[in-house]
Amino acid sequence: MTGVTRRSLLGRLARQLPPGELVFTPETLAAHAGDKWFASHLPEAVALPGSVESVSRILAFASRHRIPVTPRGAGHGYVGGCVPVQGGIALSVAGMNRILEISPVDFVTVVQPGVRTAALQEAVERQGLYYPPDPASRADCSIGGNIATNAGGPRCLKYGVTRDYVMALQVVLADGTVTRLGGRTHKNKTGFDLHRLFVGSEGMLGVVTEATLKLLPLPAYRACVGVGFPDMKTAARAIRALFAARFIPSALELADGFTVDAARRRTGSKLLRGAGALMIVELDGRERAVRSEITELSRLLADFKPTFIQKGLGPEGCERFWKLRREFSYSLRDTGLTKLNEDVVVPRGSLEALFRLGASLQKKHGIRVACFGHAGDGNIHVNLMLDETVPAQRAASDRALDELFQGVVALGGSITGEHGVGLAKQPWWSIAVSPESDALHRRVKASLDPAGILNPGKFLG
Amino acid sequence: MTGVTRRSLLGRLARQLPPGELVFTPETLAAHAGDKWFASHLPEAVALPGSVESVSRILAFASRHRIPVTPRGAGHGYVGGCVPVQGGIALSVAGMNRILEISPVDFVTVVQPGVRTAALQEAVERQGLYYPPDPASRADCSIGGNIATNAGGPRCLKYGVTRDYVMALQVVLADGTVTRLGGRTHKNKTGFDLHRLFVGSEGMLGVVTEATLKLLPLPAYRACVGVGFPDMKTAARAIRALFAARFIPSALELADGFTVDAARRRTGSKLLRGAGALMIVELDGRERAVRSEITELSRLLADFKPTFIQKGLGPEGCERFWKLRREFSYSLRDTGLTKLNEDVVVPRGSLEALFRLGASLQKKHGIRVACFGHAGDGNIHVNLMLDETVPAQRAASDRALDELFQGVVALGGSITGEHGVGLAKQPWWSIAVSPESDALHRRVKASLDPAGILNPGKFLG
Repeated sequence: MTGVTRRSLLGRLARQLPPGELVFTPETLAAHAGDKWFASHLPEAVALPGSVESVSRILAFASRHRIPVTPRGAGHGYVGGCVPVQGGIALSVAGMNRILEISPVDFVTVVQPGVRTAALQEAVERQGLYYPPDPASRADCSIGGNIATNAGGPRCLKYGVTRDYVMALQVVLADGTVTRLGGRTHKNKTGFDLHRLFVGSEGMLGVVTEATLKLLPLPAYRACVGVGFPDMKTAARAIRALFAARFIPSALELADGFTVDAARRRTGSKLLRGAGALMIVELDGRERAVRSEITELSRLLADFKPTFIQKGLGPEGCERFWKLRREFSYSLRDTGLTKLNEDVVVPRGSLEALFRLGASLQKKHGIRVACFGHAGDGNIHVNLMLDETVPAQRAASDRALDELFQGVVALGGSITGEHGVGLAKQPWWSIAVSPESDALHRRVKASLDPAGILNPGKFLG
Repeated sequence: MTGVTRRSLLGRLARQLPPGELVFTPETLAAHAGDKWFASHLPEAVALPGSVESVSRILAFASRHRIPVTPRGAGHGYVGGCVPVQGGIALSVAGMNRILEISPVDFVTVVQPGVRTAALQEAVERQGLYYPPDPASRADCSIGGNIATNAGGPRCLKYGVTRDYVMALQVVLADGTVTRLGGRTHKNKTGFDLHRLFVGSEGMLGVVTEATLKLLPLPAYRACVGVGFPDMKTAARAIRALFAARFIPSALELADGFTVDAARRRTGSKLLRGAGALMIVELDGRERAVRSEITELSRLLADFKPTFIQKGLGPEGCERFWKLRREFSYSLRDTGLTKLNEDVVVPRGSLEALFRLGASLQKKHGIRVACFGHAGDGNIHVNLMLDETVPAQRAASDRALDELFQGVVALGGSITGEHGVGLAKQPWWSIAVSPESDALHRRVKASLDPAGILNPGKFLG
């Protein structure tokens, strides 16, 4: 199809929508060309639907005329998942951003996809309720994007990921059909688990226009312990001991020596001096129970000869450590090096093997490798720290990345724990899944989106 | 297809399988004609495959020749889900019953589908690990059936249902393709969540031949509190208060006056005298923490003027209450009435409305209605207690059931919380899902099983 025809088609669609819902201005196109990853591609139009009816009309039109549609939330993804690589329409649900209901008796909330994750969390917490999934970008990202990527975060160790909180969805299918799937009950065995098929589908199966999310009672209290260890090996042993002692922390984060050192330089923290690894463990529950548990846990960790060990009680006490945790990413950027952040995940027992893999890549390719992340889940952000002033490093980084993903898969791990495949991990899709699984993906995709309009050019081609 | 042709075809298949894997003896056919529900239908052959290769061969053959295949686990379902209503092959995975691996460092177990749920739980608990889903029939049912029905149980309030523990599956598709989906990591965002599409699919999308299940650290301690209330209304208020006070029990079970009375007669328990409702709440975690929480919880519940309140500490202390809980179903049978057990579920805030619905049905139709179950989830087993000596009751029960399901749906509830649709709830499928959802179910089904051989005659026809 020629560009002119496409443009006139899109003009026709624009006239079928409320004013301002299909935009062609260069600034708007540019603002919807990508996410937080480096790749970008201009869409031919940006759809800013204000209602499910508009989404339905757009998709029906696009299916009929085979126009690519790349859905997007707040555009804070890390893997280029919403880059409209084949042009067409970038469809943003950012404007559908109302919290429709918070029910403190049913323990559910009903939201539109454009609601910011942090805004939802604050709103429910004011009512003593809790929506646990907490991606690092929660102030900027939205529920729609969280659903598309099945977003995780530190608390997912105890509380599970976004998928575990999606009880029902209103979804617009590729042909424009509006469908409600799931229900408002905490248990439900009516039919197939179709609504969850859309969770983590990276915009390739439908567009979510409303979500009913499960809420929990807000934990009454929480406490942290921050621990420095001489090295990552000791930290990995401590983690194993902690699980063997049957603790289930609400979060268990770990950073390696390079990251700790960068954080120490950025924050001036004396605490971190001499630590080759930093672990933050959080427990939550009722106050007396948590106070008793954190004392037991501190005793257990003290046996591993930490360089320091400190408790933080209550929200303020915890915040000290989380503030430090949030600095990891910035601290690594402060080094002046270019950070390639890969959210690989390995079986919980293979943490040490993953650290050894990182160290061997560093040695072999001369690229610093910094690891931090959700160690309790085996979900470690392995950061290749490129020195762009050294021309050979860019080329070496491609090989190092390849060896990282190959190594992770060899350990029984996965190439992405929470960011998604997007464009960033597309080259490793074929090693990540079997040919049979790939074929089944394509079969399901063809069944739901026979014209292939939804987010084309990603891991299913 | 005539019976003769079908029989000769099946004979041909038998010769392609190891001896004894396709059986035609009347006793074996009869033993695979149904489950714990009343309906039954004889299959033409019973497949007892010992390997994934056999399952693949059977399904490929059946797809080619359009022979119905009804997969089954241990046959302990409550809704006739594995009745081979169109004859053909009943495919039992009961013989594939090995625990292949228990990993205390990765916190996973790999099992064949025929493994009994209780046997798996005992095996992992011996290693300090925990597989929470605990359907009442766990001594008899198997993981394969649990996956097919997405089985729940009391602990699912805190720990989630079977689906939440399925990390990976080996599945044989209708055409015989063997595929591995998911992985061995506690987080995984590689592609669509396809393995969980098979969880709860009631044997209509594929046959699970191996499952990788998530394990938790075994909680170090647990404690119960058993409470009698004058009536269900007070119990429902207490439940609301308990969640508002931010407790997250590992189980929260409730029984109404009729059930309590039947249990009192069966067990001779003096404790239950005068109680119009019985609540059992369990908390788990580390010992000191649990002891402190159970004291706080008891204090909160004492405010609701209970007829009795007793704590049970540790496994033995808890077992007293669970023993009583397990008697509910038998106690109701002791009444001599016929029990129609419907596992409906309503939004958590609609518990009282559900009890009112039950009471109104009892009054209108003259049939005793006994309610007990997982009140914390809103998942109450509503039992219509038929007096078969009164001829009018059978006819009235059909109307009462219909009004029950209509009423539950009107409350925003679902017709099944954990048993599945099967045959028992098939008449209410059309009120349980929207036409768009039904169409999407059919689209996915047609995509995965184009010949329509897998468990035909159930909710998708």
